[in-house]
Amino acid sequence: MPAPNIETIAQLAKRRGFVFPSAEIYGGLASSWDYGPLGVEICNNVKRAWWRWMVYERDDIEGIDTAIIMNRLVWKYSGHEDTFSDPLVDCRACKSRLRADKLENHSGLPIEQAIAAGAVKCPNCGSTDLTEPRPFNLMFRTQVGPVAAEDDPSALAYLRPETAQGIFVNFLNVQRTARRKLPFGIAQIGKSFRNEVTPGNFIFRTREFEQMEMEYFVRPGEDERWHDYWIEQCFNWYTGLGLDPKNLRLYEQPPEELAHYSKRTVDIQYRFFPEREQEEKQWDELMGIANRTDFDLRAHSKGPVDAEGKRLNPDSTEDLSYFDEATRERFYPYVIEPAAGVNRSVLAFLMDAYTEKESERGEKRIVLRLHPELAPIKVAVLPLAKNKPEIVRMAKEIKRMLQPAMRTVYDDTAGIGKLYARQDEIGTPYCVTVDHQSLEDEAVTVRDRDTWQQVRVKVAELTEHLKKRLNLKC
Amino acid sequence: MPAPNIETIAQLAKRRGFVFPSAEIYGGLASSWDYGPLGVEICNNVKRAWWRWMVYERDDIEGIDTAIIMNRLVWKYSGHEDTFSDPLVDCRACKSRLRADKLENHSGLPIEQAIAAGAVKCPNCGSTDLTEPRPFNLMFRTQVGPVAAEDDPSALAYLRPETAQGIFVNFLNVQRTARRKLPFGIAQIGKSFRNEVTPGNFIFRTREFEQMEMEYFVRPGEDERWHDYWIEQCFNWYTGLGLDPKNLRLYEQPPEELAHYSKRTVDIQYRFFPEREQEEKQWDELMGIANRTDFDLRAHSKGPVDAEGKRLNPDSTEDLSYFDEATRERFYPYVIEPAAGVNRSVLAFLMDAYTEKESERGEKRIVLRLHPELAPIKVAVLPLAKNKPEIVRMAKEIKRMLQPAMRTVYDDTAGIGKLYARQDEIGTPYCVTVDHQSLEDEAVTVRDRDTWQQVRVKVAELTEHLKKRLNLKC
Repeated sequence: MPAPNIETIAQLAKRRGFVFPSAEIYGGLASSWDYGPLGVEICNNVKRAWWRWMVYERDDIEGIDTAIIMNRLVWKYSGHEDTFSDPLVDCRACKSRLRADKLENHSGLPIEQAIAAGAVKCPNCGSTDLTEPRPFNLMFRTQVGPVAAEDDPSALAYLRPETAQGIFVNFLNVQRTARRKLPFGIAQIGKSFRNEVTPGNFIFRTREFEQMEMEYFVRPGEDERWHDYWIEQCFNWYTGLGLDPKNLRLYEQPPEELAHYSKRTVDIQYRFFPEREQEEKQWDELMGIANRTDFDLRAHSKGPVDAEGKRLNPDSTEDLSYFDEATRERFYPYVIEPAAGVNRSVLAFLMDAYTEKESERGEKRIVLRLHPELAPIKVAVLPLAKNKPEIVRMAKEIKRMLQPAMRTVYDDTAGIGKLYARQDEIGTPYCVTVDHQSLEDEAVTVRDRDTWQQVRVKVAELTEHLKKRLNLKC
Repeated sequence: MPAPNIETIAQLAKRRGFVFPSAEIYGGLASSWDYGPLGVEICNNVKRAWWRWMVYERDDIEGIDTAIIMNRLVWKYSGHEDTFSDPLVDCRACKSRLRADKLENHSGLPIEQAIAAGAVKCPNCGSTDLTEPRPFNLMFRTQVGPVAAEDDPSALAYLRPETAQGIFVNFLNVQRTARRKLPFGIAQIGKSFRNEVTPGNFIFRTREFEQMEMEYFVRPGEDERWHDYWIEQCFNWYTGLGLDPKNLRLYEQPPEELAHYSKRTVDIQYRFFPEREQEEKQWDELMGIANRTDFDLRAHSKGPVDAEGKRLNPDSTEDLSYFDEATRERFYPYVIEPAAGVNRSVLAFLMDAYTEKESERGEKRIVLRLHPELAPIKVAVLPLAKNKPEIVRMAKEIKRMLQPAMRTVYDDTAGIGKLYARQDEIGTPYCVTVDHQSLEDEAVTVRDRDTWQQVRVKVAELTEHLKKRLNLKC
């Protein structure tokens, strides 16, 4: 039983220290969030699991970490300056700004004509006095260096809206220094920024977010096969970390939804909105796997020319083509891109792990059945009596004994029942309790989050016992 | 023997895939860098070592990860809007912009008067026709949301110039959800941005950089003792990860250098510029440990009032004071802040690890004697003959066997001598070579980076052998 809706997770997240509204003491900032002590751990665990899977466990992928603020020309030639925009409409009556493509339009006319014909209403005030749609670029702008004028175009720069371009412009750097042959990939994790008109739904869509992107470079003609391969791999990654396949599905983007660079894009969707009546509206994107063709490497290359022989990119100093020694051919590799959001993945993992259970006393208990790899804390060591110094000392010693091998905390801030309930709510797979008998028999109680079953384990065997049950990859 | 200068490291870093100039195919962006396959690993290793040391191995520190773009009021009350600036001067002759505090002034007059008196020359053109100094705020500005005008003040936001403020405004959130009592700390790692007038020296000073900051909250009166404690801890952290104490020193900031919030700040300096003749000029900041007093928590609180009883912060909705149950007192905790840069730390680790050595054939070899925790790759598995499928297969199997326990790569892109030299240059502690005999005796050669000594080890014992020699904490 996953969470009934996102709001349930948002409340739990705030109460337990996963996620807080950003700068809440000043009223926050729209759709901006701070990750608390548990949130930062689950984010780091998701990122580490992805990196290990992508980079460490394979032999064909290199990592990279490129700058958020890059030379503006990157965004000129990637197409983002021209096309990375939403159509915006102003309501002249109430001054609200609206996304034209989200307005209700039952007229049968295209949206521009429908607005001109007065057939579209402002959802806030009902007026039909709307401006015609204009493109609103979603890239955040800033100025670099000590410029005189605020709008000096020579200093204009953007916060990257995706990490992918940092990979493309470094294609040759990586290929050469790592001596790579096709097929190979480059993976990156990092913050991106999109000035969304309508962010929302907790951490589902935020203006500042973190991406995990991998660009896999292949020979043209082998792209479709690799595309299918990566769709399957990515789906399995999520289920391998505990997502129920019943809450996942593949969504084939129809031609009219495809980005300008894409030959085909398949989304892995998660059931983020189970409370919605229409089944079709329960799903939204968790990850997208796109076949970007050779669009990006071509666009950033100095080589390609137009019909008159004029260079399409007169600014680039390099040609990002690849010479295949086996076939003696030079070409622009095709790119398969699995792209996921860290925050959205964390939301899906939290929703799917959410379980309500009844205690023996008939109380409702929340248990977060997170995969051990993702759990912020693997083991909590709890003293049964905090006023007994020997028990406290032994518990703290056990914490220090376990820590090098697994993330362990010590907690004595409540009675044992409350401490168990708290660890269940934050997804800690095992609690270790030190009691009076422990002082005698050098053994402790190990409690399982999911079954609530307890076993007695010798302290000398505890590390191995927990390692085995947690089965962590590192 | 550390690196003779930063430039030596910059060249090695580019050649081997640690650090590339950002978006180099477009001429880059001043002092902006992309971290390649090896750079991203050493950065991650430094961050992970810091986090483990700060958060996991202690019982008194929580982690956090707050937004880069926060409500603007954070920067109003932190003092950054008013005071986070450099004094700038324009040369009317050549139009260059200069930092007033860096101009040569031998007049004995304060810089403003010296400029007015024509006693200061533009370093670019020699003109004395300079404007008077004006403050230039170092925070990057942007606009959030679909605003109509580019300069709509209601949409103005900054990229954070430090991660610390995200911690202060969440003080109560963390203290409450983690049920913390003083003393305790909150740690954060993340990107910050400063629109430096004169960035430079490779990754030493960049406009976009990554910080590791920890705010340790203590009772007033206990602050000086804790300050000394953290200075010692931080110094030992760097030496524990391999920095030679001879290249480190403590620097007590004189009163005129102290930030407005600081009671005392001690920098840990590294010998970043060994090539400079004057010993005093060889040192620069690696980490700062500041006693920020109760300045920040007070500034963000709704409680404090001026002499007329008017609230000093009418915007905050919370009072960030602490109630001490033991003494029944309410007060604003003092804060001790160890703040380090990831990039600058990586630079110091690289410089200190740099060694030149002569091979048996009399060739100059570079060996990067990185601490095993920081080395991007722990083990490289190399086949002695890549045209022998059994050897290649066995080498790849060994890679997969070792990978879960330690970062391992397989490489067959050159002859064995060249492969060894390459791994020495990137700091890989051990090379494992699979040769013809390995097929017979199920054993391999393990070569040590620092001594170049080789030992024969059974494959069945290899994981434990390497684990023991690497002695990784996780």
